[in-house]
Amino acid sequence: MTIADLTERALIARITARASGPAPDWLITGIGDDAAVIAPARGMVEVLTTDMLVEEVHARRAWSSPEDLGYKAVAINLSDLAAMGASPRAVLLSMALPPTLALTEFDGMVEGALGAARVGGATLVGGNLSRSPGPVVIDVTATGVARARRVLRRAGARPGDRLFVTGRLGAAAAGLRLLHAGTTHGRDTAEAECLAAQRRPAPRLRTGVIVARNRAASACMDVSDGLADAVRQVADASGCGAELAGALVPRHPLASLTDALTGGEDYELLFAVPPRRTRLFLAALRQAGETPAAEVGVLTKDPSVVLVDDGARTELGDGFSHF
Amino acid sequence: MTIADLTERALIARITARASGPAPDWLITGIGDDAAVIAPARGMVEVLTTDMLVEEVHARRAWSSPEDLGYKAVAINLSDLAAMGASPRAVLLSMALPPTLALTEFDGMVEGALGAARVGGATLVGGNLSRSPGPVVIDVTATGVARARRVLRRAGARPGDRLFVTGRLGAAAAGLRLLHAGTTHGRDTAEAECLAAQRRPAPRLRTGVIVARNRAASACMDVSDGLADAVRQVADASGCGAELAGALVPRHPLASLTDALTGGEDYELLFAVPPRRTRLFLAALRQAGETPAAEVGVLTKDPSVVLVDDGARTELGDGFSHF
Repeated sequence: MTIADLTERALIARITARASGPAPDWLITGIGDDAAVIAPARGMVEVLTTDMLVEEVHARRAWSSPEDLGYKAVAINLSDLAAMGASPRAVLLSMALPPTLALTEFDGMVEGALGAARVGGATLVGGNLSRSPGPVVIDVTATGVARARRVLRRAGARPGDRLFVTGRLGAAAAGLRLLHAGTTHGRDTAEAECLAAQRRPAPRLRTGVIVARNRAASACMDVSDGLADAVRQVADASGCGAELAGALVPRHPLASLTDALTGGEDYELLFAVPPRRTRLFLAALRQAGETPAAEVGVLTKDPSVVLVDDGARTELGDGFSHF
Repeated sequence: MTIADLTERALIARITARASGPAPDWLITGIGDDAAVIAPARGMVEVLTTDMLVEEVHARRAWSSPEDLGYKAVAINLSDLAAMGASPRAVLLSMALPPTLALTEFDGMVEGALGAARVGGATLVGGNLSRSPGPVVIDVTATGVARARRVLRRAGARPGDRLFVTGRLGAAAAGLRLLHAGTTHGRDTAEAECLAAQRRPAPRLRTGVIVARNRAASACMDVSDGLADAVRQVADASGCGAELAGALVPRHPLASLTDALTGGEDYELLFAVPPRRTRLFLAALRQAGETPAAEVGVLTKDPSVVLVDDGARTELGDGFSHF
């Protein structure tokens, strides 16, 4: 049985059935109307982000279960909210699907998306179903709320602020390499971690929110396009340069420095932290309880963005290309 | 020159350059951060919708200009806001693009999307760029604001409420037929109207907002999946049946009744109007000044949804399938 055997209404009814649970008090109209209606949170601003998962580009159906695809599509959006210090609220799920998609695969994708939303405390409030002439495309929009003065931006850091990054980088790139080599089941813990990082990223939601609430950082961004890109973006947005110490970059045991710097798909957070807030920042990380962070460099007055590794200084490139 | 020749940052810079204009006072952080930040409107609720335009499914690059694709992707979302009676605010633009896409085509799509946003009074606040292994996919999320008690839903109508639909239906389906037959330039006004309806739909923004503000309707929905589907959805959501008079359905001269009922892609609005509010409703339409509406039927206690045409009564089907 494929999705083409059901009407759009019947497919939406399958989503609604799985999305059950008490509706949050801010949700006025959820799934099933022309649009969702939500009440704003008093004294808060709305944070909105969108990110797309495209089959053959970000994931393959041969490598990831339908649940994984749905999970990842939502998780990568929640990571953007975490990078702003926003608490997730609403998720919109827009899917372009080939008519040959099995109904069980459809159900799996929905289940995965709802699972990631649940982990992040977000509620599915609407979306859209389209036919695709080829790849599965899952586009998610996520909204969150934060106090206006606590929002973490890429801009706002100053020369002298230290750069910290959470987790161990390069795991997602190492996981992709394993999949390309035909390893779909990890033969040990390290491999399993890398495959999980590639298939089901765990955004640092509590970390982002708690650091923001404590005003413990001056800027933040997720490193989903690689640490090198993130450092450059925070430096540029803040009108600084940066010096990144290759030896200090926390790497997964199966990852190279190149994986960590440019592999991408690590949903960790890069923070700029003013020196006098370092203790506050480290306390916030402990309170979040998700992962430690490593100090990897410093923002500089000099506008160049430099990697220092093995005594050599290399200027980092001017940005990432998805194409 | 293709988009693969530029970094993502350079592509985003091209969007930002085109999006120039004074930022609205509610926009705290726009394009270029991990997420957009917007201030809620005092006393209003947020309305959120998402809709996708997929190449080969909703439009072809041989038939529509890049500007048309971008325009349509945004316009179909604004139509969903209109159907809720919400005033547009923010637009997020998420695009999956083949690396071979010419830079001029990219610029055209952005220009078209910005054009539709401008017409609707909406501001582009963020988005996402991805690589596509095949089709161009443009997924848009649009937000709007409305007073909570004025929001128009599908539910809320009662037996006896009259059904009105704006504009002339079937034009988009007739336009698609012309394109399939190789007519990409209209040979007369009627053909040109149908091609325009297919390529650059004109959502009824003022009509939706002004009817909602005047509480002149009890329910509303756009007829983008055909009038038959819309009537059934409003009837079901409101716990009614409906009787639709085929002879009263306003059709474009080049459209059949089938085009009007099931052709889809007409971004007109279906309203349920309590009899005692009919004059108020018609006055609101005149005030909006976009298009007249025709009375096409009535909601009934009997739960069946029936088309009356040429003396024959036909039960309308149970819904639309995109697959």
